[in-house]
This record gives sequence, structure tokens and C-alpha cells, in this order.
Amino acid sequence: MQNTYPYYIKQIDNEYWLLEDETESLIIYYKIKEIILNLHSKFQHIMILDSYDFGRMLVLDGAVQTTARDGFIYNEMISHIPLNIHLNPKRVLLIGGGDCGAANEICKYNSVEQIDIVEIDEMVVKACLEHLPQVSGNLSDPRVNFVFADGIQFVKDITDPKDYYDVIIVDSSDPVGPAISLFGLDFYSSLHNILKSDGLMVCQSESPIFHNKTMEQVYNNLYSLFPIVKPYTAVVPTYPGGFWSFTLASKKYKDTRPEEFANVDRDTKYVNDGILRQCFLLPEFILQNLRNEPL
Amino acid sequence: MQNTYPYYIKQIDNEYWLLEDETESLIIYYKIKEIILNLHSKFQHIMILDSYDFGRMLVLDGAVQTTARDGFIYNEMISHIPLNIHLNPKRVLLIGGGDCGAANEICKYNSVEQIDIVEIDEMVVKACLEHLPQVSGNLSDPRVNFVFADGIQFVKDITDPKDYYDVIIVDSSDPVGPAISLFGLDFYSSLHNILKSDGLMVCQSESPIFHNKTMEQVYNNLYSLFPIVKPYTAVVPTYPGGFWSFTLASKKYKDTRPEEFANVDRDTKYVNDGILRQCFLLPEFILQNLRNEPL
Repeated sequence: MQNTYPYYIKQIDNEYWLLEDETESLIIYYKIKEIILNLHSKFQHIMILDSYDFGRMLVLDGAVQTTARDGFIYNEMISHIPLNIHLNPKRVLLIGGGDCGAANEICKYNSVEQIDIVEIDEMVVKACLEHLPQVSGNLSDPRVNFVFADGIQFVKDITDPKDYYDVIIVDSSDPVGPAISLFGLDFYSSLHNILKSDGLMVCQSESPIFHNKTMEQVYNNLYSLFPIVKPYTAVVPTYPGGFWSFTLASKKYKDTRPEEFANVDRDTKYVNDGILRQCFLLPEFILQNLRNEPL
Repeated sequence: MQNTYPYYIKQIDNEYWLLEDETESLIIYYKIKEIILNLHSKFQHIMILDSYDFGRMLVLDGAVQTTARDGFIYNEMISHIPLNIHLNPKRVLLIGGGDCGAANEICKYNSVEQIDIVEIDEMVVKACLEHLPQVSGNLSDPRVNFVFADGIQFVKDITDPKDYYDVIIVDSSDPVGPAISLFGLDFYSSLHNILKSDGLMVCQSESPIFHNKTMEQVYNNLYSLFPIVKPYTAVVPTYPGGFWSFTLASKKYKDTRPEEFANVDRDTKYVNDGILRQCFLLPEFILQNLRNEPL
């Protein structure tokens, strides 16, 4: 049988390895037990790999997106921080997030009435629901509404205030190719427009170490639109350098409510009341990088 | 000229790469600009490599120990946390720490009168002072006293209370080979013996994700000796998974003093008053792993 895998799947001594270029001079080799899924959608090359160290992984065009072992960290941090800060989140928009992990976390909030997931690639959702249950869960909540469309166009088309959102979560891939627009001022401006007057948003804003310019750009773009902008961080072992940033931008609410979180069992593995107390307290080099205004 | 490098230095298309086995199924390839130093001491293979992504790196037996780019995180976290908690640290013992990075941080405390660095391998110190100034600094403080000896024997030999310490920092390598003893109850018991009645110690306790059993063992060992045991974490991109733990054990003092830190410029790049407020607030999965007692 012919090996038809791209360069980032390498066979060494009868074992498959995934080669992930973090930079052109830093490459991680993950040894693979089994290639579970290997297909091309209209948008990208989708693989589900079973790795020795991180269990099953979703890999898009050779880049690890989420894993059974550490996916919970990213998905909890991008969901619970904004939903804990907003006092009464009802309508939530998730842009990207086809692995369904963030949606699972959002479903843990009783106040939420509707979750619109706008994911460009339906095949990613199908792949994760079928082959990556450790991340996607058994997502069958009636409040979840999938829209398979381009997020940028979707938000531009919303004009009726009754369709505005309380919380918007941008769970994007890295700013290369089409995803670059998801880090730009125009897109954030559209998001600002479709947030209610007390709405807030969060986006992943890359590594504070390897992509500090991206993090700074996201911060400055959001600060030109929102009165409250607060970056926070978490550790995601399968992302370059392990250190990852998120940036929250809000029209009104700014404080986490650790006591509220402690009083409800949301079955989390990373976020707890302590994390809600600490996640906005950033290392000195990050503060120095975001020179703009005191955070 | 014959290539006499071990297996973890690989030449690909005229470029050198360092292959670091994080586990047997997770390997990081660092592309190397230049091999600065390559020698064998009585104890280990010592290399200083200039890498594209992390600048100069100290590599012992193929394992990255510290780098010009991110060494400050580890060295600041293992030093400033205990020195900020102790109200008046005068005598400090550093076991290991041959890269001199932690010693540089300790020297920033005026109350400190003596810093004994017990490092088994003098050649590591020489290598770092000469070729890794970004980490070792220009360490020439008269309070620093190098002892090139086995740390385990050194602490056993101390019997006179006037030689006891206020703060002990165990800056060890991973618990493989001889370093295993540096994670054991006997060693911690010796440290407890030579700490003053208000003394405290800290050790690096490995990755909360990949070595959670080590972290738990360190916690339990220390808890059997000290009334106060508090793990904390930081992000170290060049360590497996990027997430690293330290464990503080104290006879009396337990709280950080962020205000004190904010009032003195200690020229740090990671630790600030915010980090002192947050570093003991741990993710839920770490708390669950340390079942012993409430932290």
C-alpha cells in the first residue's frame, strides 16, 4: 500500500511520527500509535491521530489543534473566563471551535439560551464528534446551533439588535492564510457592533513568547474599540512553548466572580476559583510588551 | 574532521540539530547555529549550543537545562518566591544551580549575607560564566561562596547550628541517575535539620503533567517533615510541556509579600507583585493530584 501522507507524517522504523514545525528551527516529533482519520475537506487536510503522549489529536494541515490529554485547558480557559465575568450570558456566539470542546463548557451555564457555533468546515465537526469524544463530548444540547459558514461574513450580516450577543468567543486557528482576518481591526469592529451594550468577547491571542507581536496587535486593536481589555494566559503543552494567551474585551463587565464559580460544580479540570483569581495577573515581560495602558 | 558528537546531535543538510527526548515518543528538534562548547567532565557531557529559537543553551547529557531566552523564568521563580516569603533571609544555600542564574537573583536581596552554592560539577560553572553570560551574569558578588561537592554529603556534614540556613534552594536536574536522591525523604530530612527554626526551602518538582507522580511524591515527603508545604508553578517553554512546578516547604513563614516586592526594583522579567499574588493558586487537576491535605 502506497504511503500517501504529506511531509509532516514520517515513517521511521515502521512507526509513524507527526512532525510539527513550531518554527522553521524548532520541530516537535510526536510518535503515533494509529492514524484514525485522514481526509481532505474543501478547506484543509484533516487528521485524527492517536499519539503516545497526548492520546487522540486533531491535526489540521499538520498543526496540532487539540488533544485528548490537554484540550481541556484551552477549552475551559476560553469559555469559563468570559462566562464567569458576564453577569447573565444568554446568547453566545462561538466562531471556529469545530472541535466542540468550548461548546461543551458553554453548555454548563444554565443562563445560556442559545449557542451559535459558526465553523467554516463541517468535516472538522463531524471528525471530532465521531473520533475525538474526549474533547467534543457527547454534544447534543438543544441550545447548540451549528452554522457552517465563514465567520467574517456571518458577523457582517447581522444587523437586527435582537440577534446581538452577550458573549462572543473567537476560537480561531493561527493567523496564517484566511485566519489572518480573524485578528484584524475590521473583524473586531464587526464583533463590537453585534455585542449588546453590556457584551464582552474573548479571542485566543497566540503565544506571549513566540508571537508577542500578534498579542500586542490584538491588544491594541481591541483597545481602540472597547473600554476594557484584559489579556490572560494559560499553559497548553501542545502549543509552541506551552504558554498561551487570550484577550478579553468588554463593554462593561471586568471582574471575575470566583465565589460564584466555587458554588456551582461545573466539573472542570483546569479552571477553579483560584484560577479566576489569578489568570489576569501577568508576568512582567508580558506587561512590558503591552506598553499601551496599565492593564 | 570527524563528527564525534553523540546521537542527540544530528547533522541534516549541513545543519546541526539537537534532538531532545522529552519522552521516548516526544522528541524536540532544536536547530543549532553554532556549537560553542563541547566537553566531558568527570560527571557528564557538557555542551553550550547557540540555537535559533532560544539563543545559547546549556545542555547536559543531551538535556536542555537553561537558555538565554527563557532561563530567567525558572531562575526568578526558584529564587524570588522563597526570598520574598522569608522575612529576613541572611544565609542562603543553593544546591545545584551551576548555571549561576539563581545565584544572580539571590544577590538582589540586601539582607542576604552569604550564599553557598554547592555544585558537584565545577566545569558547568566555568562553562556558564564564560559562554552563557545571559544566564550566569557577571557573577562576582563577594557574598557568593562556591563549594564543588556532592550536595547530599555537604548537608549531612553540617552539625553546628551557627552553620544553619534561612533559605535552601534545591536547583536540581531531573530525578534520573544520581539526582534521584535529591527527591528523597532522607535528603529532605537533612535539609530540615540544617534550616533555622524559621527557615524554609524550595525545590523544583518537575512537570505537573508529565511527572505528576514525582510532584506528588515531593509534596508528600515534604509534608511529613514541614508544617507548611505549598507547590507553585511557572511556564518554562524549554521544559517538557512548558509547565513546571516548584514546591516550597517552610517551618514558619507562608505568605508572599507582594507590596514589599513592588517597592524595590529587582530588575526582574517574570516575577512581579502580581505573580507573587497568584503563583500558589493552582489549576484544579493539580489540586486533585495532591489529595493529601488542603493546600
